Amino acid sequence: MSIELNEVKRREKGLKIINQKIKDEGVDSLIDLTGLAGGFDITSEDISLLETYAGPAVFDERIQKLGIEHMGGEKILPLNRTTSGIVATIIALVKPGTKIVHYLAKEPAHPSIPRTAKLVGAKYEEYTNIDDVLIDEDTTLVVITGTTMDLEVISEDAFRCVIDMAHKKDIPVFVDDASGARIRRAVYNQPTAIDLGADLSVTSTDKLMEGPRGGLMAGSEELIDEIKLVVNQYGLEAQAPLVAGMVKALEKYSPELIQEAFKEKDQLYDKLLDLKLNPQTTPTGFMFKNNNIKEELIKRGANIDVDGDIVATVYSILLLEQYNIITIPAVGMPGASKTVRIDWSAKDSSKISMDELITAINKTFDNVVEVCNNNCLESVLYE
Amino acid sequence: MSIELNEVKRREKGLKIINQKIKDEGVDSLIDLTGLAGGFDITSEDISLLETYAGPAVFDERIQKLGIEHMGGEKILPLNRTTSGIVATIIALVKPGTKIVHYLAKEPAHPSIPRTAKLVGAKYEEYTNIDDVLIDEDTTLVVITGTTMDLEVISEDAFRCVIDMAHKKDIPVFVDDASGARIRRAVYNQPTAIDLGADLSVTSTDKLMEGPRGGLMAGSEELIDEIKLVVNQYGLEAQAPLVAGMVKALEKYSPELIQEAFKEKDQLYDKLLDLKLNPQTTPTGFMFKNNNIKEELIKRGANIDVDGDIVATVYSILLLEQYNIITIPAVGMPGASKTVRIDWSAKDSSKISMDELITAINKTFDNVVEVCNNNCLESVLYE
Repeated sequence: MSIELNEVKRREKGLKIINQKIKDEGVDSLIDLTGLAGGFDITSEDISLLETYAGPAVFDERIQKLGIEHMGGEKILPLNRTTSGIVATIIALVKPGTKIVHYLAKEPAHPSIPRTAKLVGAKYEEYTNIDDVLIDEDTTLVVITGTTMDLEVISEDAFRCVIDMAHKKDIPVFVDDASGARIRRAVYNQPTAIDLGADLSVTSTDKLMEGPRGGLMAGSEELIDEIKLVVNQYGLEAQAPLVAGMVKALEKYSPELIQEAFKEKDQLYDKLLDLKLNPQTTPTGFMFKNNNIKEELIKRGANIDVDGDIVATVYSILLLEQYNIITIPAVGMPGASKTVRIDWSAKDSSKISMDELITAINKTFDNVVEVCNNNCLESVLYE
Repeated sequence: MSIELNEVKRREKGLKIINQKIKDEGVDSLIDLTGLAGGFDITSEDISLLETYAGPAVFDERIQKLGIEHMGGEKILPLNRTTSGIVATIIALVKPGTKIVHYLAKEPAHPSIPRTAKLVGAKYEEYTNIDDVLIDEDTTLVVITGTTMDLEVISEDAFRCVIDMAHKKDIPVFVDDASGARIRRAVYNQPTAIDLGADLSVTSTDKLMEGPRGGLMAGSEELIDEIKLVVNQYGLEAQAPLVAGMVKALEKYSPELIQEAFKEKDQLYDKLLDLKLNPQTTPTGFMFKNNNIKEELIKRGANIDVDGDIVATVYSILLLEQYNIITIPAVGMPGASKTVRIDWSAKDSSKISMDELITAINKTFDNVVEVCNNNCLESVLYE
């Protein structure tokens, strides 16, 4: 028997479980360890203020102060997303026929950079080896990605080297520091991108901090004003409610949470190894890819004739149903990765002990084996 | 003595007055008649939901139902702004070297349309006379603007005529219905843009309804999916908190408020005429331009050697200081129009009677005369 993964129905099932749990046990019963929940901890006073014409101005003033503390620079530009800031920077600074040079530690690059280069008619060159980087007269923007998708960090030396090359030719340097603005600083003690000499830096307010999905850019007043104009012209700025959420997230941001998760993930990993479980690590947690889950299930005696996506999704649904732990495969948008990823720096990690988490992770493998061997995969997925 | 208008200090003064009033009398004491306040009437339950990974999905489902009721079509796309939707539509549908044809009742066009045409390397032609409209083989998108900046509405016949011309050549029609989706429907009984035959329509959730600044697009599933891809690629979508605010605004939207304001503005206008005041009308209120204010002040015996922007700003500050009424010149961003515009469909109009408003408007002219003749303009503006 072969089963197709219906992404829409699978997600409906995930959301149905969540809605039911909110009704029965309250929203606090859910343990969201995706690391992707939108922080939006605003008060009713904030909401009243947002309903006046003046509200946006008030939050805009606060974000300036908090944003500069977090990122450095002279001026802050709140954005609808980090991508919005990348798009606006390229439209503002890169002329048709000129070139963008991108240095990143590991491929793939964020697709918005080559895509927007193409939109404005610019050339795009990407380097993962610092010795290869070639910045010539055609170049009008140098982009550095501060961390890889897997949160690997580039060295301070590499940063300074690329910045130096660009500045020798008077070319501005823009750092995509989506997670880096925190992981580089909190865990690796690196300076902010601006303090490393970059002209512009952008970060995501929902990555390793409890803000809404959104972006913050920092830089000199002159460059930020130039980009802000484009941001307003194309509808890329953060609206007032988002800015209010960012202000709250910056106010309560603490590098200690990330530092703790960074340390504790080793303990978590050791405890998993004790159970002969072998996940991949992330800077603040661990993850099982779809095929790792399938292998573990087979090791435990499951008869499986479906692919890894199906069993990873079933795993995620059972983890939610039985332990209230939210991971992406059950509730992510259609097409989302089927990796079960646990972010121990997520604020909901305070709701569960390490041992409880390990037990849930381990028992859920057994539960999926049972579902496989009783031919109940489809009913778990869709009913 | 000549006075320069320092836009930054002027706005700081306006915001200081507002902050003081919020402290002393509470936020409800403010009467915001700008018509531009961001509606963001979400509950603490909504906020809890927004803090889960599932929140966005829940609001996204609700906006589909409410958005289709409001705008027609098969599918809804919530946007960071109406402009964001215009930008995405042009990037998605218009190829370099082809042409955008734009029909609008009166210039100026919204600058985002020609600007994005240029960005993608397309030609752009604009027509204000329906008999001139020329849609040829080069055309890949026809845009119709449903209402002018002054909220003048184009006729159903004109709509149908342009849509017909475009469809004869299989070219999609996109309606910029920023205010039109309400003013055309509520006041002029016109169908939605989609029901008139348009393929896509976009509206602003903060214009003539109590939502946050943002946009909503409606259309066929196929076209919306195509544009949604671009929206996500370039960071133009509405984030979850914004979508939650839009859901609330659509839930409480009532055309009656607009219809009442539309009727009552005639009464307001008559009462102003009785006092020999002669404002310009808008569909849901009235406005005094900077020079109309200056003329009225001179008529009342003011000695004025400064320009209209200065006295209009002083007028707006005194209206706020003495009657708690917020208008743009006092608190708008630097460079904002110095027109004192009263939107009687703003929800805060319920906090004040017509006669109280008229008295405030009238007395404030006298108060500005006094300020002018006592040489106190600068201290009112900045101290």
